[in-house]
Amino acid sequence: MPAIRHALSTKREDDFAQWYQEVISEAEMAEESGVRGCMVIKPWGYGIWERIQRLMDDRIKAAGVTNCYFPLFIPLSYFAKEAEHVEGFAKEMAVVTHHRLVGDGKGGLVPDPEAKLEEPLIVRPTSETVIGAAMARWVQSWRDLPLMVNQWANVVRWEMRTRMFLRTSEFLWQEGHTAHADRADAMTETLRALEMYRDFAETELAMPVIAGEKPENERFPGAVATYSIEAMMQDGKALQAGTSHYLGTGFAEAAGIQYQDKEGTQQYAHTTSWGTSTRMVGGVIMTHGDDDGLRVPPMIAPHQIVILPMLRENDEDEALLAYCEELRKALVTQFALNEPLRVLLDKRPGKATQKRWAWVKKGVPLILEIGGRDAAGGQVSMLRRDKLWNEAAKANFVALAKEDFVARAVTEIEDIQTSLFAEAKGKLEANISRAGSFDELAAAFADDKRYPGWVEVEWSRPTGAALEAVVQKLKALKLTIRNTPLTAQPVSGNCVFTGDAAVERIYVARSY
Amino acid sequence: MPAIRHALSTKREDDFAQWYQEVISEAEMAEESGVRGCMVIKPWGYGIWERIQRLMDDRIKAAGVTNCYFPLFIPLSYFAKEAEHVEGFAKEMAVVTHHRLVGDGKGGLVPDPEAKLEEPLIVRPTSETVIGAAMARWVQSWRDLPLMVNQWANVVRWEMRTRMFLRTSEFLWQEGHTAHADRADAMTETLRALEMYRDFAETELAMPVIAGEKPENERFPGAVATYSIEAMMQDGKALQAGTSHYLGTGFAEAAGIQYQDKEGTQQYAHTTSWGTSTRMVGGVIMTHGDDDGLRVPPMIAPHQIVILPMLRENDEDEALLAYCEELRKALVTQFALNEPLRVLLDKRPGKATQKRWAWVKKGVPLILEIGGRDAAGGQVSMLRRDKLWNEAAKANFVALAKEDFVARAVTEIEDIQTSLFAEAKGKLEANISRAGSFDELAAAFADDKRYPGWVEVEWSRPTGAALEAVVQKLKALKLTIRNTPLTAQPVSGNCVFTGDAAVERIYVARSY
Repeated sequence: MPAIRHALSTKREDDFAQWYQEVISEAEMAEESGVRGCMVIKPWGYGIWERIQRLMDDRIKAAGVTNCYFPLFIPLSYFAKEAEHVEGFAKEMAVVTHHRLVGDGKGGLVPDPEAKLEEPLIVRPTSETVIGAAMARWVQSWRDLPLMVNQWANVVRWEMRTRMFLRTSEFLWQEGHTAHADRADAMTETLRALEMYRDFAETELAMPVIAGEKPENERFPGAVATYSIEAMMQDGKALQAGTSHYLGTGFAEAAGIQYQDKEGTQQYAHTTSWGTSTRMVGGVIMTHGDDDGLRVPPMIAPHQIVILPMLRENDEDEALLAYCEELRKALVTQFALNEPLRVLLDKRPGKATQKRWAWVKKGVPLILEIGGRDAAGGQVSMLRRDKLWNEAAKANFVALAKEDFVARAVTEIEDIQTSLFAEAKGKLEANISRAGSFDELAAAFADDKRYPGWVEVEWSRPTGAALEAVVQKLKALKLTIRNTPLTAQPVSGNCVFTGDAAVERIYVARSY
Repeated sequence: MPAIRHALSTKREDDFAQWYQEVISEAEMAEESGVRGCMVIKPWGYGIWERIQRLMDDRIKAAGVTNCYFPLFIPLSYFAKEAEHVEGFAKEMAVVTHHRLVGDGKGGLVPDPEAKLEEPLIVRPTSETVIGAAMARWVQSWRDLPLMVNQWANVVRWEMRTRMFLRTSEFLWQEGHTAHADRADAMTETLRALEMYRDFAETELAMPVIAGEKPENERFPGAVATYSIEAMMQDGKALQAGTSHYLGTGFAEAAGIQYQDKEGTQQYAHTTSWGTSTRMVGGVIMTHGDDDGLRVPPMIAPHQIVILPMLRENDEDEALLAYCEELRKALVTQFALNEPLRVLLDKRPGKATQKRWAWVKKGVPLILEIGGRDAAGGQVSMLRRDKLWNEAAKANFVALAKEDFVARAVTEIEDIQTSLFAEAKGKLEANISRAGSFDELAAAFADDKRYPGWVEVEWSRPTGAALEAVVQKLKALKLTIRNTPLTAQPVSGNCVFTGDAAVERIYVARSY
């Protein structure tokens, strides 16, 4: 087979980090903004985020959660309360100290010393504290429970090392916060949110994940239990793509979320919180991208099908465009994956092959290239992004009668969604190994250049100092415990760390 | 007719400003957040905003504009450039000066002096400057034009006097920015956006508006022409509810947005910008609210129909709930105003009458109250929010067979949308008067306690100092020129300000 000339200059296996940056740049998803750690999300990247947001929002609403909006700024005093409990408190957050600019008399501008805020404001790193304060106002009686709210917003955490979509100082996310009458109800909601995320990742993002409980050392501060979905990137590292926390009554006690129960007694609510972010876009890139750029699962693709007329800037263009428009119309009335097909007729000027490769790199699921001869003969040339190359190392176009394509378009789109999931699922399963001892575990990660994926081990779920010893031992190998899968097989042996009888299985991996 | 006991304690005619605050509070739309000038948008208020956002976004996308996301922070230097051109530049903006908090050693927290930013960052008051910089990168050739992007985001303008939804330090908005090859194309886009806003206000918000050009003194800084939609609130004041600007090439020259035309010559692009915000929610309240609270037009109502079972916490509840659920299912499969009916079955515990009045104050278009007897007899009791009181000053319930209601639900919902618009349109028209002289104009606003609405006059469109004289004369009467309607009748007389021959008509009013 002749060598394929891939669309990107960096291959995944040569330099995964560089490849990731190249996909983002070549697929025109995002770019540096000139503000350290903040990115400009370009139309194609934002279009994917909008699809994710809309589909996730539908699921959140279907669960009876309502959206709210809380202020961008949080008074410093809200954090001072938190700092009391945290030794050596220091937080990387954007601090607003002035509310006006004035000229410095030398042609420049400075914060106006006359407009210094009495109390500095913090740009929200999460809205947890203000939502807690609101819940304390809104919850009075058992009739007000459960109270379930969600917010879509930008948040800021000052980061020293940033990577687009994975870790940026400003990012977009949703945070769900719920209050319940008792532990059982709150735990049900915690696991409902986790299952929502698992199903969303696998169905909408075609990204297989493991849902499970994080170990004690990885719990969200103040949480009684933290759960996550973990996805395997193509370099074998794990990406935490969503978390759900059961907070017990600790958060309600701090925020004053109390209700009168049916017997008239004041009780603290049991609360939960759960979140996902633009990080998911990074997960999609590293799950589905290949050496030709991104491949977007059809459910979250802004356009599922792009029609590319091969315009020649002559008299024949009109008939060609009419043919393409007719095709577009025949497609958009059809439903795939429960929604009308999203089809773009790309009429922009420019060479068709250049435009084709731009769409390949963007990862649009299906490209239809149509020339004057195709139009005259009632044909289309179909290129599936997930089957890009033929055996001759050429773009794998399939010629079809227009009617035949229209008849099978929905099937093709749905098949691409299924195929991308199956491919990623195959990779995930192929790259989970098992280790029966710590030495076996260490050996699996011995080659520092290549990640073998994840390793499943049995452990005794140590706590406190015993757990800390395990964490440090793993840290020396740059490893972390990802989670205890909810659906794991029963244990049969001893803990690979402590030698005690094992109680559950965990995944160990390098991670983002 | 007996006296109606309205649901609010303040009537519009007694104290409009107080009434406005009471609607927001009683309809649970928003509340103070504890951060000066920032509000918490509660589920009902945010649900209305989400409807507005989704419907507006559909229109923006249908026009071929793509959404992007730009950073929250803007380097100070971007504003310094602007300040060079503005005498006595001083801007009320939130300034970020530090990126970390540390303990002050006394149990409190302070901005870490070690973490002072080299260059302060401004929380975006608009993203205009960063979008301009991005456009300069993205536009190279005539093939890249038109470039049309939009952003949905939060922005911050430090405000001394704030009023919820109308003027808050942080608010939510969309800002469209487009670049074109020539003036004609840019003007077409400017007017397209204006017309989109006009039609959106009248169709989706049921809020009649006047679309027209702002006078020179009200132009956006740097704009060649600024257009607005103006709505009349029930106190007779005008609310500017959306703006669209043609910016000529000035903005492109400042930002460096240049393209190579077909002949190979470098040209500056012609740009536009246009925006609407959460202010529209304030407009909806002051257009449709009455002495019983808000009335939400069905197109933007999070729930169009609320079913209220009169639960008794006994064995009969189950049958009643089953009856209501069956009704809900029969309704949600129907389409009204191009979308499936949005129906809530409100099963929360609590007294039915209390719940009824809560929904009345929230302004849900249609309430169905259903008791055990109704369920047994196959009946429903319907209450239309826009026909709330009967002649006996009681809640105007209409008893219907369930099947009859199901058959007419869509008609009722669509009729409410139409009726709210017709009612508001009638008020607008009834409260526009005409003045043939400045004395007549002044006389119309002589009673400082009551606003007569708007006054239409003819003028000579003076510029420069002559315009400034007009503006000051009006300011003394607390009046402003709203706009020159695009669809005005031809002029026939002289300018009421200058006495010169009139060239066009304008609206003069008090305003928010």
